[in-house]
Amino acid sequence: MAVRTIEVRERVMAKNDELAASVRERLQSAEIAAFNLVSSPGSGKTTLLERTLDTLGEELGVAVITGDVQTQNDADRIAKHTTRLVQAVVTGGACHLDARQISTALDALDLDETRLLFIENVGNLVCPASWSLGEEAKIVVFSVTEGEDKPLKYPKMFRESRYAILNKIDLLPHVPFDVDRALGYARDVNPDLQFFLTSALTGDGLDPWFAFLRSRILSGNPA
Amino acid sequence: MAVRTIEVRERVMAKNDELAASVRERLQSAEIAAFNLVSSPGSGKTTLLERTLDTLGEELGVAVITGDVQTQNDADRIAKHTTRLVQAVVTGGACHLDARQISTALDALDLDETRLLFIENVGNLVCPASWSLGEEAKIVVFSVTEGEDKPLKYPKMFRESRYAILNKIDLLPHVPFDVDRALGYARDVNPDLQFFLTSALTGDGLDPWFAFLRSRILSGNPA
Repeated sequence: MAVRTIEVRERVMAKNDELAASVRERLQSAEIAAFNLVSSPGSGKTTLLERTLDTLGEELGVAVITGDVQTQNDADRIAKHTTRLVQAVVTGGACHLDARQISTALDALDLDETRLLFIENVGNLVCPASWSLGEEAKIVVFSVTEGEDKPLKYPKMFRESRYAILNKIDLLPHVPFDVDRALGYARDVNPDLQFFLTSALTGDGLDPWFAFLRSRILSGNPA
Repeated sequence: MAVRTIEVRERVMAKNDELAASVRERLQSAEIAAFNLVSSPGSGKTTLLERTLDTLGEELGVAVITGDVQTQNDADRIAKHTTRLVQAVVTGGACHLDARQISTALDALDLDETRLLFIENVGNLVCPASWSLGEEAKIVVFSVTEGEDKPLKYPKMFRESRYAILNKIDLLPHVPFDVDRALGYARDVNPDLQFFLTSALTGDGLDPWFAFLRSRILSGNPA
């Protein structure tokens, strides 16, 4: 029984990796930088995307694919901040997006007008770590209200990510949270992580994030 | 391929339900009330358990089983607040606990000395909703920093829960969060939910929670 489960799972994952490779090729040939935003529920991914679209949406040709278990709430929120189509994927209970869903969503987007693509994954620090979506990099978002130990408790997600955004820094005066300890834990798990400290709500710390995104575009080939 | 996956999944779930039924029988015959605490990462489950053990640990004979993906951090934290064994289950990547793990964990606990059992599930608002652990009820914990819409976005978890704890109410002055709207969304999804509003950090709102737990014990048979 256990063996059968593992076999099936391996075949599903292998198929996903194949599809992710073809998504990656498609994005690269269209010269689109794609970031897969992962986090626990309520860490502020959607607010960060709203802010990012307000500032860079037109300048960088930003498109968004949202993944939600049941609703299109995030897509509806984000759609108010862009004139482009926001492609919503409802996973129907699954705890992550997969490459097939991204491939289908890309069909609906105007890739010629897109230079930067955000994929807002399902709020979940476990499942999405295992599923490649053909993205340039995963970006893990965590917030100062979640406690410093999240990188230790969900190490795979922090290892699979190239960037980490520590969000809700406006709440630091009100919560027991040691920033240095949290970043230290994250570096223990993944020494190559690059950090952004932000408050998507107040706008604090967003300038380095915007500069980073501009640099990913200016560098031409996002790979 | 898809059909094969679904078949295997159904057999795994059916086997889990069988094991959960036997766990439930075992807990009932030992007259132990068992609650399965579910939430997103960082909502405050562990702090709530620390507080609960400090106040009720000896009085109610409280035992704890913790589930974590990789670490035993939560078990180590909780162990400082009780003289009893805290049973840690490391899921090794899985996004939820299952009934077999609980059955094994029960073997290590002194059931004669236990009247109340908390199972602290993996921080995840998706997967644990589908896995019965033989518990009396699931209790979903969410916090005012996560946004009001979590019940709508993770409806299965709120439907499967009989109780909901809205935590971190000490942060209400500092975050954009409408309590009535959040509770309304939760009731839309599950009209039978019973709520507790707490700050596990400051202790606000814990008295009704403690009274509830005492009532579950005093009522004798927890079913």
